[in-house]
Amino acid sequence: MRHLLDTRTLTRADALRILDVAEDMADTQQREVKKLPTLRGKTVVNLFFEDSTRTRISFEAAAKRLSADVINFSAKGSSVSKGESLQDTAQTLQAMGADAVVIRHGASGAPRTLATSGWITAGVVNAGDGTHEHPTQALLDAFTIRKRRFGADSRGQGLDGVKVTIVGDVLHSRVARSNVWLLTTLGARVTLVAPPTLVPQDVSAWPVEIVYDLDDAIAAEPDALMMLRIQLERMNAAYFPTEREYSRRWGLDARRLEALPPASIVMHPGPMNRGLEISAEAADSARSTVLEQVANGVSVRMAALYLLLAGAERDTDTTDASGKEPTQ
Amino acid sequence: MRHLLDTRTLTRADALRILDVAEDMADTQQREVKKLPTLRGKTVVNLFFEDSTRTRISFEAAAKRLSADVINFSAKGSSVSKGESLQDTAQTLQAMGADAVVIRHGASGAPRTLATSGWITAGVVNAGDGTHEHPTQALLDAFTIRKRRFGADSRGQGLDGVKVTIVGDVLHSRVARSNVWLLTTLGARVTLVAPPTLVPQDVSAWPVEIVYDLDDAIAAEPDALMMLRIQLERMNAAYFPTEREYSRRWGLDARRLEALPPASIVMHPGPMNRGLEISAEAADSARSTVLEQVANGVSVRMAALYLLLAGAERDTDTTDASGKEPTQ
Amino acid sequence: MRHLLDTRTLTRADALRILDVAEDMADTQQREVKKLPTLRGKTVVNLFFEDSTRTRISFEAAAKRLSADVINFSAKGSSVSKGESLQDTAQTLQAMGADAVVIRHGASGAPRTLATSGWITAGVVNAGDGTHEHPTQALLDAFTIRKRRFGADSRGQGLDGVKVTIVGDVLHSRVARSNVWLLTTLGARVTLVAPPTLVPQDVSAWPVEIVYDLDDAIAAEPDALMMLRIQLERMNAAYFPTEREYSRRWGLDARRLEALPPASIVMHPGPMNRGLEISAEAADSARSTVLEQVANGVSVRMAALYLLLAGAERDTDTTDASGKEPTQ
Repeated sequence: MRHLLDTRTLTRADALRILDVAEDMADTQQREVKKLPTLRGKTVVNLFFEDSTRTRISFEAAAKRLSADVINFSAKGSSVSKGESLQDTAQTLQAMGADAVVIRHGASGAPRTLATSGWITAGVVNAGDGTHEHPTQALLDAFTIRKRRFGADSRGQGLDGVKVTIVGDVLHSRVARSNVWLLTTLGARVTLVAPPTLVPQDVSAWPVEIVYDLDDAIAAEPDALMMLRIQLERMNAAYFPTEREYSRRWGLDARRLEALPPASIVMHPGPMNRGLEISAEAADSARSTVLEQVANGVSVRMAALYLLLAGAERDTDTTDASGKEPTQ
Repeated sequence: MRHLLDTRTLTRADALRILDVAEDMADTQQREVKKLPTLRGKTVVNLFFEDSTRTRISFEAAAKRLSADVINFSAKGSSVSKGESLQDTAQTLQAMGADAVVIRHGASGAPRTLATSGWITAGVVNAGDGTHEHPTQALLDAFTIRKRRFGADSRGQGLDGVKVTIVGDVLHSRVARSNVWLLTTLGARVTLVAPPTLVPQDVSAWPVEIVYDLDDAIAAEPDALMMLRIQLERMNAAYFPTEREYSRRWGLDARRLEALPPASIVMHPGPMNRGLEISAEAADSARSTVLEQVANGVSVRMAALYLLLAGAERDTDTTDASGKEPTQ
Repeated sequence: MRHLLDTRTLTRADALRILDVAEDMADTQQREVKKLPTLRGKTVVNLFFEDSTRTRISFEAAAKRLSADVINFSAKGSSVSKGESLQDTAQTLQAMGADAVVIRHGASGAPRTLATSGWITAGVVNAGDGTHEHPTQALLDAFTIRKRRFGADSRGQGLDGVKVTIVGDVLHSRVARSNVWLLTTLGARVTLVAPPTLVPQDVSAWPVEIVYDLDDAIAAEPDALMMLRIQLERMNAAYFPTEREYSRRWGLDARRLEALPPASIVMHPGPMNRGLEISAEAADSARSTVLEQVANGVSVRMAALYLLLAGAERDTDTTDASGKEPTQ
């Protein structure tokens, strides 16, 4: 793999490869010494145009566990905000020796531009771009579902027939988009539950079913119920009347938690608005995978960085390979 | 030791153990290569809800000298400030693999809540909470007094009979509180000198003597005179009339420095307001231990992280031990 | 070398030594594993009183490639901004174990004060001070010119007879000053091109020629044309009428690029204001060395940190040597 830009164009084979390597990585995190020498001498730059402490820390931990050097570049207040172009910033980072650039950007498509423009040869990982995609989030979600469903020995396994229901502000959610593409590629059946004003206009072209009533969706017995984070700043945008109303109609409260089949899991990408889209009972219940998702996020990001940077597996786009890459 | 939350409940045996390990750590810092492999593969998160560059850097240096990976998490501007709970933040950090959380928080008691709530199993170090405690500051102060008094071979030694006088805004000072508990546990006799409006209401329950006149306190020949930092923002709070008045009555000027017994040391936790609570003559005199305190701070924090994370010494609260801890 | 404070007092021998070690460092950056163990156990502090993400990252990458521990200290919002003196800040950092302090400061001369005041024994590297100097920028520029001119095997080589033309706001530019001193020390002939209001008053004492017309300067066939960054905030200061006017008279556009001799190189310290002082054609042309300068910056900073910290080469000012330095 050269880059990880989205899940929409990710093949099932590549997705499974990432998930399987992530299983290996997760195994190493159980050891007394969690650190691997794999990426020693490599430099990973976290290039964040938007604040996201959780995602940045997860990538930072993943890179450090693999012994890479990590440099954090918050674009706020830097020359970038003084008008330097993305091209110049990226080329500068690569000239300083960046082997991978983990980019978070407010503009949908910025990571793909970076990867395909010919500006740089470093590996690019999309850590969230606009309302477009957040592929490592979807990969950690798929990893979590697979592990809960099939156990530790699930390597090579897809999610065929697994029923996943995603609830909330789908319209603005890159997490929802990345999950829709990845989960369906892996064979899952995805249902979306959203307020009518928060359903994307082109959703009829998505490989999903739309439901407008959360209780109906729960009655359909999903294997995984994924609650999206509500961006409180959108509340003022008149998409829905009030927090109380949102919580009543699309929040996972104790009653709905009770109505879920016993084996169903409850997912949330975090950070949670407890009492809004998810109640404390649901967040802290044994079927909640919120913290497993966080832990799996480090394993999945270790896998992605390993596949992009460790060489042996870099078997695609070889015509684009830079001089730094080992021959096979 | 599982956590380091305060000095009020720290036993004399545990305090001496930290100070003695800190002596070992200080010895390693004299070597050509100061780095130890002890905490390789461990992750220390600096979770700072308040800015404190000095304390953060001291913990960061301590952790890196022990080969731990360090992740800095400034809670300002993060999801924490958007309403995420301390519980969710802490559980997220632990799920990412944090073995220790060094927490600085504006609310007194937050580190204890974190450590005792059952939310996480990671070790918790209080790096200053509200007006409550700042235990590593007191430990480095005790270390400094002991080293000056008894030399390098002071392992096992307490501070029995040593006279320590603490001067300044005791009311708002967590440094003063942590020192009162620790120093008296170690056998020292502590005197407080403060403007009447800056004496805590419950001070009669403290194991200290109160004096209102700094010259009287100096005439009593303290072995160590500890000047607290004045928070200039409190000047407006009408606790005392003016900077000049404060300096005249409770500042350590050249005349008072001269009046101190020759063997007395002058301490300050830094950063100093030169010319306010301490004059340049006092700050830069041979009896000032200000820079020794800073250097000893790294050694004491190395000791604390070592005792919390290195395993062999983790002999308390074993019923609470997580799967990650080695059996003894 | 004990410190790197400026290029004005740097001898030709010391300058060549840095450039030659930088050649060695650049060679190591071509390897599969770019990391050297040279500074393991050393601590480098980036003490930045002004924001400069690029320079900070370059020093951070350089130090990490040499296996040093790096601590970033942004003085904004810290106790420094609350009135702590430079002396106290520096002594605190050294007490925490800093072996080198890389300092960026708004006041011209601050790094020299730090290095010569006797406050600390740590090595000091000037990363830009006021309008005074930015020596590592000039060293990377000289390195770039030498490498383009003489190839990889240029060790020991000066820049005798090389013609370098520097264009732009010389008055406020520490980059221009550092380059003037260094390049002339190495034997180059330096020409300055600047708007009349942006020429320093004392320039008649500089070892340079002044030209007011960029086309005249280009007609003189410089080997290297160095475009300075325009600080847009100075545009309001009435030094020149408008961006369009500046660009027309002192910008490097396609026509002027064409007029340059084929072997001339185009330099810029970055970040570039494309379309203002430099056009996209010039910035992206084969004769542009902008990205080589960035890459060479890491090598030059590795060399400087190595020479200051690695011991064997620390042969000057031995009377000032601290106990930490090895004897030779």
